[in-house]
Amino acid sequence: MHDLKSLFSPRSIAVVGASTRPESVGRALFENLRLSGFKGKIFPVNPKVKRLGSLRCYSSLSEIQEKIDLALIAVPAILVPDILREAGRIKIKAAVIISAGFKEAGRNDLEQEIVRIAKHYRLTLLGPNCLGFIRPRNCLNATFASVSSTPGSLAFLSQSGALGTAFLDKAQSLSLGVSLFASVGNKAILDEADIINYLQTDKSTKVLGLYVEQFSRPEILGRAIRRFNRGAGARPVVVLKAGATAAGAQASVSHTGAMAGNDEIYQAFFRDNSIIRADSMSDFFDYLQIFTSNKIVSARRLAIITNAGGPGVLAADAASRRGLILSQLGRATLASLKKNLPAAASMANPIDILGDASPKRYLDTLKMILTDDAVESILILVTPQSMTKIEELAEILLKHRRSLSKPLAICLMGGASMSSASLSLRRAGLAVFDYPEQAVAALAVLADFYDKEKKKVSNVFQIKMPSISWPEKRAFERVTKIFAHLRSQGIKEIPEFQALEILRLYDLPVPKFFILRSQADAARARKIFPEPLALKIASYDILHKDEVGGVSLDVKPENLVGAYKDILARVKERKPGAAIEGVLVMPMVSSSLAELIVGSVSDSSFGHSLMIGWGGIYTETIKDVSFTLLPLTLEKIRRMLSTLRVGKILLGSRGQKPADFQSLVRLLFTLERLLFDFPEIKEIDLNPVAISAEGLQILDARLILS
Amino acid sequence: MHDLKSLFSPRSIAVVGASTRPESVGRALFENLRLSGFKGKIFPVNPKVKRLGSLRCYSSLSEIQEKIDLALIAVPAILVPDILREAGRIKIKAAVIISAGFKEAGRNDLEQEIVRIAKHYRLTLLGPNCLGFIRPRNCLNATFASVSSTPGSLAFLSQSGALGTAFLDKAQSLSLGVSLFASVGNKAILDEADIINYLQTDKSTKVLGLYVEQFSRPEILGRAIRRFNRGAGARPVVVLKAGATAAGAQASVSHTGAMAGNDEIYQAFFRDNSIIRADSMSDFFDYLQIFTSNKIVSARRLAIITNAGGPGVLAADAASRRGLILSQLGRATLASLKKNLPAAASMANPIDILGDASPKRYLDTLKMILTDDAVESILILVTPQSMTKIEELAEILLKHRRSLSKPLAICLMGGASMSSASLSLRRAGLAVFDYPEQAVAALAVLADFYDKEKKKVSNVFQIKMPSISWPEKRAFERVTKIFAHLRSQGIKEIPEFQALEILRLYDLPVPKFFILRSQADAARARKIFPEPLALKIASYDILHKDEVGGVSLDVKPENLVGAYKDILARVKERKPGAAIEGVLVMPMVSSSLAELIVGSVSDSSFGHSLMIGWGGIYTETIKDVSFTLLPLTLEKIRRMLSTLRVGKILLGSRGQKPADFQSLVRLLFTLERLLFDFPEIKEIDLNPVAISAEGLQILDARLILS
Repeated sequence: MHDLKSLFSPRSIAVVGASTRPESVGRALFENLRLSGFKGKIFPVNPKVKRLGSLRCYSSLSEIQEKIDLALIAVPAILVPDILREAGRIKIKAAVIISAGFKEAGRNDLEQEIVRIAKHYRLTLLGPNCLGFIRPRNCLNATFASVSSTPGSLAFLSQSGALGTAFLDKAQSLSLGVSLFASVGNKAILDEADIINYLQTDKSTKVLGLYVEQFSRPEILGRAIRRFNRGAGARPVVVLKAGATAAGAQASVSHTGAMAGNDEIYQAFFRDNSIIRADSMSDFFDYLQIFTSNKIVSARRLAIITNAGGPGVLAADAASRRGLILSQLGRATLASLKKNLPAAASMANPIDILGDASPKRYLDTLKMILTDDAVESILILVTPQSMTKIEELAEILLKHRRSLSKPLAICLMGGASMSSASLSLRRAGLAVFDYPEQAVAALAVLADFYDKEKKKVSNVFQIKMPSISWPEKRAFERVTKIFAHLRSQGIKEIPEFQALEILRLYDLPVPKFFILRSQADAARARKIFPEPLALKIASYDILHKDEVGGVSLDVKPENLVGAYKDILARVKERKPGAAIEGVLVMPMVSSSLAELIVGSVSDSSFGHSLMIGWGGIYTETIKDVSFTLLPLTLEKIRRMLSTLRVGKILLGSRGQKPADFQSLVRLLFTLERLLFDFPEIKEIDLNPVAISAEGLQILDARLILS
Repeated sequence: MHDLKSLFSPRSIAVVGASTRPESVGRALFENLRLSGFKGKIFPVNPKVKRLGSLRCYSSLSEIQEKIDLALIAVPAILVPDILREAGRIKIKAAVIISAGFKEAGRNDLEQEIVRIAKHYRLTLLGPNCLGFIRPRNCLNATFASVSSTPGSLAFLSQSGALGTAFLDKAQSLSLGVSLFASVGNKAILDEADIINYLQTDKSTKVLGLYVEQFSRPEILGRAIRRFNRGAGARPVVVLKAGATAAGAQASVSHTGAMAGNDEIYQAFFRDNSIIRADSMSDFFDYLQIFTSNKIVSARRLAIITNAGGPGVLAADAASRRGLILSQLGRATLASLKKNLPAAASMANPIDILGDASPKRYLDTLKMILTDDAVESILILVTPQSMTKIEELAEILLKHRRSLSKPLAICLMGGASMSSASLSLRRAGLAVFDYPEQAVAALAVLADFYDKEKKKVSNVFQIKMPSISWPEKRAFERVTKIFAHLRSQGIKEIPEFQALEILRLYDLPVPKFFILRSQADAARARKIFPEPLALKIASYDILHKDEVGGVSLDVKPENLVGAYKDILARVKERKPGAAIEGVLVMPMVSSSLAELIVGSVSDSSFGHSLMIGWGGIYTETIKDVSFTLLPLTLEKIRRMLSTLRVGKILLGSRGQKPADFQSLVRLLFTLERLLFDFPEIKEIDLNPVAISAEGLQILDARLILS
């Protein structure tokens, strides 16, 4: 276990590299610490200096001779290992390495060395290559940033120091206080998951914000986040993510790989872990503002108070786009609005209290709708009209702050004329936005978070855990042998005829099929298959059979021999060098409710994912796919199905029976097993998978080994 | 012709209702005018006052005895007609009616009266119920707003006075100057189209921004906008639209009506007229900023300079989402970057010039990439790091302002520490944004506008004007009779069997069909149709045949009589009261490339639109539809097809031949003709329309009359 208490709530701190040199990191760090009002002891360490301000400066950590909880280290990278060893020897428990020049600069060796030292001495380590951290409630600023932070309820963890500084700067101008700001740097020891676990019991943290570039341990991070944002007292986690996933191999040979694109795997991670994703920095701040300013309660039904019609309509439009519902005001509310507002006011929601609305009229209206049960959240819109006394309005709202018991967003539209009111409202912890659409989007995210916590995923898709008889040991051994053989041949891309064989060994529903190796085979097959047939070329050199004329569909059995010869002739012409194993023959599936694509792709940090989507000829056109990360659960499958457009088709319509969802569930869990047994499978592509009320059949498949 | 010169460039102005009463509109208006430095003569008119400041106050307009170009009127609505008459009599050419209390307050009579007076005296009239206008270059502020504006290149027209004030306030804090600000109010005489036509020759206007709630004359507005934003010297038009269209009849009986939803008709109007739509106020200001700050040139290939990696990645992500391309820097550029930047800097684009980047390093990098032909636009990202001298950077950029010859966006990430630099950059006319995603989105809109002007719509869809032989007079007369008959029966919803008849009269491709009225008919039909059949109930009381068991598909001719009896029995059970005309029978269409939905819906302000979409069972699931407004052009059809996912299916794939697009073109133009002949058609729904390489067939249809 890491000692995050010594790190974030130390009683004594040594600053190695403290300095008076202008523009040096050591000076900025030391000054921040000194000026932040830290109550414990501070020991500057710098062999070249005797005193720093009123404090004695030590030549080394060992010289200090008092108990030190935390060491802040800001010396050239090359000196860090020795200092860390010294810290370990004198039993310092935690350290922050501000210094850069490690992994990020190509010095992985140096990074590994400090990891070894930290592990050896059980040092809790933040960094290296980081900005440090701020714990305003402990009067502790351990960064070299030029801006600081006030106490608040937001914990913000940033993988980028620069973005961290921009964040602190912006947060300050939004009066957004923090419980903890930490720059995690290279995450040599501590990463986000460790810090989130430490925050589980931190009552002052109400909201968690993360800026992430790479996820180091997604499974562990996911678990930490779910402890934080689920169940009783669930607290929202908002993430801003930069950069594309490694799996985003545009040149992928499988459809699934191509679909995974840049972002689908992350999307799956966010969805699986109820993480609120901000699509931009602007959204990020809006969401943090709404969550730090309001309680997490039901907020779906919104009332809008405005002093101008147009902006009210803009807000109402945005509400409908974002899934908020305009409250139907109760009779009592309408009666009292009618009694108290001017005749020209519009009592319908948005409530237009007219251009000459005084602060008192705003307050009166607010009071009337606060007691209406149909109103769960409130948006106050203010445009700067000639009668608008905006500072007075701010004062009156602040005076009645305590009675504002429902989620509230205030939108002050305009520029300079709004800034002083905006500042005082934000300082008092109210959420203030520049534009109606922003305010509405933030309220919608609040409503979504509450509802997601309270409601289970829609239960339209009635699925249950399948009873799967795991493939016998014999199957596992057969597949192992097949893979070993292919590997020995240098084959990584496994075409249909071989992939179907592997799937069949795992008891997956593939049609009856044969490989025709001669005309005589073809003549014989005529008798076995009475129905129309599909013929497909079987060759390890051909992954995309269509492109070389290697497919014939709807072949009547009596034409089988001719079709067999035609396929061979076409392929010979278009791909002369290919070694042909034969021609695969299988019966055509007469009809299905829909054709799906089911697949898997492996990501370097997230491991295997599973995908369901609309397949067949619609694969590329519609791009209707949904991913989830392993391990698989029924809830994840439900969630995938409910985000898919093809999900509605599967439910049946116009008298068609719904698909056999259980067969899909069985397929997915069996694929998970296959991936567990053979982690060397990089990609799977089952497409099309024909599904109907009677079950499903895998009509084409390919596997890619890593 | 309206006299907008007298309105916007008057030499003398009378202010009727000028006042000294605090908080009165008349005072605010008069003060604004007086203080704006207007060079012409000002005549305050108010019978109760002798002098206003240093000016003589007149008791009436007639008393003035000098030439007056413009009258500003701010008196109670009831007094306005008389004043307007007086203005007309003394040959004042233009008037602005600030006063409210007309149509918007239920006094349509009063509004009609001023329209009559204005038309009689040929008065050019802005308002009523408006904020007025500002023409900064003429030192003319004719509004009662509490904020004003500086000269600039943006013309902004607002339908809402309140939003206009919020706009002016915000624009001022963004240093966004205007060539004209006008609040159009109730648009009794002048509307946006008139003002835009006036601006066609106004060289000082480079960008047009509109805030619109209702479009008064969409065809005329569209034409004015196309003159403004197309061809040589095309200038961008950015619109912020509030509110939903009247056609958004959620309870519509046709699919087309339901699809039109709230917004599709507007979307069609915007697309047809190359209007840039801002989805939020925040986008609106971002787009206006980028256009007023930059020339309209090719800007697709973007170079990013940043002093921090993370934000660079955020910007690169946004660029890829928005369709911008990161420039591949040329060899010479890379060589000079390598020579001049520190070794740790990243020369790949985004160019990371490191956290300690000085203003000079920014400038040097900028100079190096400005000469690279691969770089068409530039984004400068600045995070507030400890070494960042942001004011100095702003100074250095301003000093080299003239050499910044390519579209440029500057993103200053942070809060208060950035505000002074941001202010001075904006004052100098540079586009400054808070967040990287915003800056990128704005640059992308600039790139799109330039490319749209330069490139024609993709020519994948090779279509040409069809030669349509218009239906004979006889057909027109027959349909006229049918409609008259239906109207006399009180029938507005025309079901399939009757709708197909109408379409056939207009030479549209419907299958051969009969109405079976007896078992004997059914027995006879067996001989006429050798192929599998579709049977559908024919009744004016049944629009949704499926729901009452009124459809049998794939009926073999030998089973026709039985199927006929079954349908009648089912319908009798499920809809006992319905008057049955018979059972429609037609051959099944064996196969098609895709099933489309083609339709039309009529909107109270936009008139008829045409829609193409993915139809059949996918209609509701995929919602892949595209609308256009009439009149139809080939380019509009191409544009619709290229926005549809089903468009790709129609192009053919996997060896399938492309659809016969010409048959679709013929269908659309014929529908336009039908709508022209019969404006009483409110909605048309052709669904499915089976299309293949051989042509198309309309397999089901309904018409709704208004």
